Amino acid sequence: MRVGIVGAGQLARMTLEAASAMGVEVVVLAEDPHDSAATVAGHVIVGSPADGSGLARLADACDVVTFDHEQVDLAAVSALERSGRTIRPGSTALRVAVDKARMRTRFAAAGIPVPAFALVPSPDAPGAGRPEGRGELGGGRSGDGSSRADRVARSLRAVENFAAEHGWPVVVKAARGGYDGKGIWPVADRRQAHEVCRQADEHGTPLIVEELVPITTELAVLVARRPGGQMAAWPAVETAQVDGVCRQVLAPGRLDPGTAADAVGLAERVVEETGAVGVMAVELFSSGDTLLVNEVAARPHNSGHWTIEGSVTSQFENHLRGVLDLPLGDTGLTADHVACVNVFGAEDGTDPRDRLGAAMAVAGAHVHLYGKAARPGRKLGHVTVCGPDPDDVLARAWAAAGSLGTPEPAATSLARVT
Amino acid sequence: MRVGIVGAGQLARMTLEAASAMGVEVVVLAEDPHDSAATVAGHVIVGSPADGSGLARLADACDVVTFDHEQVDLAAVSALERSGRTIRPGSTALRVAVDKARMRTRFAAAGIPVPAFALVPSPDAPGAGRPEGRGELGGGRSGDGSSRADRVARSLRAVENFAAEHGWPVVVKAARGGYDGKGIWPVADRRQAHEVCRQADEHGTPLIVEELVPITTELAVLVARRPGGQMAAWPAVETAQVDGVCRQVLAPGRLDPGTAADAVGLAERVVEETGAVGVMAVELFSSGDTLLVNEVAARPHNSGHWTIEGSVTSQFENHLRGVLDLPLGDTGLTADHVACVNVFGAEDGTDPRDRLGAAMAVAGAHVHLYGKAARPGRKLGHVTVCGPDPDDVLARAWAAAGSLGTPEPAATSLARVT
Repeated sequence: MRVGIVGAGQLARMTLEAASAMGVEVVVLAEDPHDSAATVAGHVIVGSPADGSGLARLADACDVVTFDHEQVDLAAVSALERSGRTIRPGSTALRVAVDKARMRTRFAAAGIPVPAFALVPSPDAPGAGRPEGRGELGGGRSGDGSSRADRVARSLRAVENFAAEHGWPVVVKAARGGYDGKGIWPVADRRQAHEVCRQADEHGTPLIVEELVPITTELAVLVARRPGGQMAAWPAVETAQVDGVCRQVLAPGRLDPGTAADAVGLAERVVEETGAVGVMAVELFSSGDTLLVNEVAARPHNSGHWTIEGSVTSQFENHLRGVLDLPLGDTGLTADHVACVNVFGAEDGTDPRDRLGAAMAVAGAHVHLYGKAARPGRKLGHVTVCGPDPDDVLARAWAAAGSLGTPEPAATSLARVT
Repeated sequence: MRVGIVGAGQLARMTLEAASAMGVEVVVLAEDPHDSAATVAGHVIVGSPADGSGLARLADACDVVTFDHEQVDLAAVSALERSGRTIRPGSTALRVAVDKARMRTRFAAAGIPVPAFALVPSPDAPGAGRPEGRGELGGGRSGDGSSRADRVARSLRAVENFAAEHGWPVVVKAARGGYDGKGIWPVADRRQAHEVCRQADEHGTPLIVEELVPITTELAVLVARRPGGQMAAWPAVETAQVDGVCRQVLAPGRLDPGTAADAVGLAERVVEETGAVGVMAVELFSSGDTLLVNEVAARPHNSGHWTIEGSVTSQFENHLRGVLDLPLGDTGLTADHVACVNVFGAEDGTDPRDRLGAAMAVAGAHVHLYGKAARPGRKLGHVTVCGPDPDDVLARAWAAAGSLGTPEPAATSLARVT
């Protein structure tokens, strides 16, 4: 069995490492031969995931196609499915993952708790729809002939109506194309809302509006699923973001047992609802006594990198097992506590590869670098530490990350993890 | 830093997996583009390790050269070292590893306990020497003009003299080119000795003769070493061979603490004596109260595959850390007990890749396949299981291996592990 991976970023790279160990052949579809996974892959097809011909070439070369990211030509994915290709996860799960409007609507209808939300009429498709594809592309010109001012006013009215019911501030989000904190705008009043709607219209960005949830903890649950429905979930982890970018993951999360179990239960309902195959990451807000599903990704996820050393089976291996319809592996932890910290390009341009020695001198530090050129703010790697004490594993992971040029943010900026 | 690996077998493949995780670039020198590591490598040079030009091309492409096996052109390695290339381990350690006569002589001189042995005059260089290169090649024609009968008689006399002192049976071994039980001949009497000497002369195989050690347990100790001398040893493991081929490894070995510590101490003396860099595997016999050093390999080794999941740092990562002169990682275990069992091609030609599902259904089984075509008896993979109970981890590892077509041998044939 040969697996094709659409995209050649670090997720594909870590999937290749798992595939090599299992003896599973992989072909990656890379936009650039210098992409993270392309430089370490035995079989590479250079082509665009947003282009049907690249996807078709990959599908021709493989028994099953899976994904490193969801920014793909979904119409082409659907066409491949109709032609009998095996695509896992399939287009249904991908559509939910890439479109917040669709996700919120569908989960709410299924009784899965999500933040209060409303759809915002968007330039060319009032409500949830725009032609499938990348959310941030397109010129934003409407097909219905309405003027820009009319369109912006209509969007603004939807935001104001929502705020009238739920109160200011609200959060306006890009329905598609957002990631790592991009495409999320906290909006305090009508004036700010107008500015966001105006800019969204200019860029053709479809929007939703949501309540600003008072977050106690941000959680993530990874679930692997086989085509027949068998699932295996890892324990809920606690994540910490700065400016919407994940900086730190602690497994298991410091949660009361009931909350931890509820989070896993909710994540499993989400995965069943979407019919995802392989790994799905479900991000949740814990807000007081309430859990709300915030985001899903239909693939391995940054919140699960700790599983490489911290779990009996890594998210990458179980993703492959799922998409190959093999029995899923044990998702138990290998240690009491596991910390995982992301490594970014430093402002001064220092390359973490030049500092590997200092990081490896930290006891028990598993240093992962993705082979990407160092640029300020670019995600270049992560460090995982396993051990008996949560504070100790966090401290060692940050010590190693600091050695690589990513010091721990000030306590005030490392949101919601003390 | 770019690492070149001479050879593209499964050791190179598993080293590539570790290198990818660390963000270290690797180039492999493969004899065949279908070799185990060549199919999963981003950078491959096709060429022979027994040919100076292949080695030179690899050295030109890399900052440091290391090895998947020792069957290399040692004269070419020495020449590269003289030209200022960084070769780790260097030719001194490689020469000791590939030549049992040199190894025994050197270790004995350093006071390291080895089986009683004697050199057997060989066709073209009485004692230890033949031109450097692969031990089993060559036509066996002597340079000194002596007749075949004279040469065989001289060899036989050496064996008989040794047996007169130490008693029959003895063990005659090929001084070079033996592996996995090949090149080892237990010899009960003069007649058998004559036959071995005659055949060795025909094939040009240099010999040594040794006492037959009454083995209580076979052990292996892996040690990683940096160029400056820093070392990190994993605990001594217990190995079980059938017909000289490693079938099972249990970590830690079931040894009294004194023996376990002595084994590690001896292995560290061996590594210091050879000046090896990277991982060196030291195989030992425990015989009653005595430990004897039997074999060394100047590279990662089958007896250390358990470290991938069973140790904080795998032998492959620490080999890379050593050859890159980076701080060595923690060699502690991740579980109380770790079992590792080899998978071979079945007699009926079944391919383990077709049975992956059955093996993965075994709880906690880490299934590794090397991407090699299935042929009866060929080493195709291994299974590792970690857990709190030694019998349980062995049973699960064998259950998974059995699913892949390699059932546990009958108790009587699985030597020295109960």
